[in-house]
Amino acid sequence: MISEATIESAIRELVLANRILSRENVIDDFGHVSVRHPTNPDRYLLSRSRSPEIVTRDDIMEFTLNGEPVARDARRMYAERAIHGAIYLARPDVQAVAHHHTRSVLPFTVTDIPLKPLFHMGAVIGHDVPVWDSQAEFGDTNMLVDDLPKGYSLARALADGRVVLLRGHGSVCAASSLPAVCFVSIYLKENADLLLKTLPFGPPKYLSAGEIEKTAAMLLGPMPLARAWDYWMARAGFPGL
Amino acid sequence: MISEATIESAIRELVLANRILSRENVIDDFGHVSVRHPTNPDRYLLSRSRSPEIVTRDDIMEFTLNGEPVARDARRMYAERAIHGAIYLARPDVQAVAHHHTRSVLPFTVTDIPLKPLFHMGAVIGHDVPVWDSQAEFGDTNMLVDDLPKGYSLARALADGRVVLLRGHGSVCAASSLPAVCFVSIYLKENADLLLKTLPFGPPKYLSAGEIEKTAAMLLGPMPLARAWDYWMARAGFPGL
Amino acid sequence: MISEATIESAIRELVLANRILSRENVIDDFGHVSVRHPTNPDRYLLSRSRSPEIVTRDDIMEFTLNGEPVARDARRMYAERAIHGAIYLARPDVQAVAHHHTRSVLPFTVTDIPLKPLFHMGAVIGHDVPVWDSQAEFGDTNMLVDDLPKGYSLARALADGRVVLLRGHGSVCAASSLPAVCFVSIYLKENADLLLKTLPFGPPKYLSAGEIEKTAAMLLGPMPLARAWDYWMARAGFPGL
Amino acid sequence: MISEATIESAIRELVLANRILSRENVIDDFGHVSVRHPTNPDRYLLSRSRSPEIVTRDDIMEFTLNGEPVARDARRMYAERAIHGAIYLARPDVQAVAHHHTRSVLPFTVTDIPLKPLFHMGAVIGHDVPVWDSQAEFGDTNMLVDDLPKGYSLARALADGRVVLLRGHGSVCAASSLPAVCFVSIYLKENADLLLKTLPFGPPKYLSAGEIEKTAAMLLGPMPLARAWDYWMARAGFPGL
Repeated sequence: MISEATIESAIRELVLANRILSRENVIDDFGHVSVRHPTNPDRYLLSRSRSPEIVTRDDIMEFTLNGEPVARDARRMYAERAIHGAIYLARPDVQAVAHHHTRSVLPFTVTDIPLKPLFHMGAVIGHDVPVWDSQAEFGDTNMLVDDLPKGYSLARALADGRVVLLRGHGSVCAASSLPAVCFVSIYLKENADLLLKTLPFGPPKYLSAGEIEKTAAMLLGPMPLARAWDYWMARAGFPGL
Repeated sequence: MISEATIESAIRELVLANRILSRENVIDDFGHVSVRHPTNPDRYLLSRSRSPEIVTRDDIMEFTLNGEPVARDARRMYAERAIHGAIYLARPDVQAVAHHHTRSVLPFTVTDIPLKPLFHMGAVIGHDVPVWDSQAEFGDTNMLVDDLPKGYSLARALADGRVVLLRGHGSVCAASSLPAVCFVSIYLKENADLLLKTLPFGPPKYLSAGEIEKTAAMLLGPMPLARAWDYWMARAGFPGL
Repeated sequence: MISEATIESAIRELVLANRILSRENVIDDFGHVSVRHPTNPDRYLLSRSRSPEIVTRDDIMEFTLNGEPVARDARRMYAERAIHGAIYLARPDVQAVAHHHTRSVLPFTVTDIPLKPLFHMGAVIGHDVPVWDSQAEFGDTNMLVDDLPKGYSLARALADGRVVLLRGHGSVCAASSLPAVCFVSIYLKENADLLLKTLPFGPPKYLSAGEIEKTAAMLLGPMPLARAWDYWMARAGFPGL
Repeated sequence: MISEATIESAIRELVLANRILSRENVIDDFGHVSVRHPTNPDRYLLSRSRSPEIVTRDDIMEFTLNGEPVARDARRMYAERAIHGAIYLARPDVQAVAHHHTRSVLPFTVTDIPLKPLFHMGAVIGHDVPVWDSQAEFGDTNMLVDDLPKGYSLARALADGRVVLLRGHGSVCAASSLPAVCFVSIYLKENADLLLKTLPFGPPKYLSAGEIEKTAAMLLGPMPLARAWDYWMARAGFPGL
């Protein structure tokens, strides 16, 4: 009984995260967000193949870390769900994963300009954000992370960070909860956008390593996450939750 | 009977494509989208002269490939319908055509910067996007493709591609279905916008020829088109369709 | 009787123009739009001092070309109504005037980059757009065109054109009807925005003088104006009008 | 009785200012706005820790200038409320304070480009806008102004101006009323955004010192403030107030 309520609560939060990342213009028609199963760490929850803006409770499916659906289910699945399983396997500390194609992040995947925290809210992306290029290991592909070897390769590039960029494709964020993965995703976008605005005017003063560490620890604490989550829910049309 | 239902279904999809291209900021007050007649390949369906955002079922008219209305009809027609007939004539594989003035595409029509796929979703525009300049063949005009000779000239520039740009004017997309022509139109805009953001930071790494081919084939397959169409319909205010 | 209906119709169209220029992001909290009185060319109609987004029928006042209210009226008036009277006095062909601070136009008022038509819709601004600088004749001011001498000076700068820019301030458009002044205002903004996007990539190919003339004549004809007006009305929340 | 109505009126205006600064995209999930207590100058009113977009009447708390809540209250408080108390202490003329992270202002906090009035509405920010860098006095921190010493340091940087920027963080505005602090905040953002658009095209012509002084005095007078406030209220969803 307790377990079922726990699962229901995780599913509900996952649906909200889908809606929030759409409303905040991080995810559009493609992209997805998952959460590790709350009582079975070898499973994760993810929508069937559907745009996050219209995901509902009944779209959520349960997967093994290999990306196999746990229940018999004929519904279409995201082609890139290997991203989620590979990261949950490599990173026991990660409880939520999001993949998106936010436009402002893309220039940092195809040029040499580095994506570093420029304002306090951007500290959550960490000092150095790696770029994974599917060409290096897999040559010409359809650009999707659509099998486990590509997922494992991407997870290695992520290493112990919160963000990895994908060349000519987008980004993946990994964090300790759904509110945290939304926070990292949204401020990844905001910090990238700010860098694009600022860089034409000469080398800016980035946050120092010490500032990044202290600010990220503060921002990913319970108070800022709760304040941001309440705000995002209201904007996504769920003010009473 | 079957034929009538088929036509009704095509008209309904055409009205949705009008609304979708408006909602996604590809078309504003001017611009239009058509579909080849589903049972008579020598005809096409297109709205009377009206902004796509407010097009309804009763605005749709039937035209010959010369741009003549099939029924007696005193309503005003788009001055540039020659674009549609000329492309349907030259390209039996094309089932849907859209013309628009998306702002982010325009810089590529009046400068030498090339419009090439920079992220996976942009692969649908193809390797090289030609630019048609009405000056070359027709001198000073009112800039409209308002007769068949201009339409034929434009269709020659399009050749066997999916996109052609019009200098100081806009773009035309041609594809195998209404969802596909919406997909090409929307990601043409997104890829152009991304290039404008990226180019100030030095020569970017574009998608390779092999990546473009594989990614476009995948994106224009039934699964991505269905996912995007559902998303666009929900955003355009038709969630239940 | 006929006269009264004519005036009511002009007032109604003026209220719509207020709402349209707000909805299309040309005017924000400040800025205004007027129409020459339909039966008395020595008068014009303009709202009391109020943001155009919330102007209603009862806000419209009647003014002499000197900016005096015709009726006893204690309501606050726009400080810059001299713009309207001065232009109606100097230009018998002008039936509608709009003043706004659209952001994308402002860079062209404080640098040397010229504002010229770059795409067909921009042709309505004409070949050369003059810049009026209040410093030249009036020295340090509060930047407002708040008396008749400044209004007359501005009208001289406008000469026989449709657009004049105000240094560090904004722009004024003058045209032969309210739909036409909305069209010029909106595409002034769009063309300026397009130039800002394009100029970083090198000198663009502008429209030729012949193209500007032919395209502007076509765009300010009844068909394009009617199509645009229907679209703007629907977007401003008046779909049935 | 009179005093209670005065306080109620101040609280109501403060809630509106919260909503307005959110609606106008000055404040997002973080940031806050306060007003000096209308009958006790040693106190100020500020919401509990909550995003301004969803602040309501019951969220408003009363604080001493040291940032202590006057009533016993277990609710979470903004970590940066020292900003407000420190400025009310240093500046008897200031009746309202706002803190935000408007993106367009941030490039001016991490590069050498100066933030100066470029159009008439920007005159309200004053001739020179100082930048406060927490590093200078406090070294590596979590970037927040989260104690009184930092608040006092920031208030010294603000000096007798209306705006101070915070390096890699955001800005603080101080003015003589809630409408005035909203006006300064919104046009700080607009002027910064305009500068970012303009500076790539060479050194612009800024407003002269005399123009800034005359224009700011005019704009912060009762008529422009009332017009802007009515407009903002309508946009924030309170048209009848």
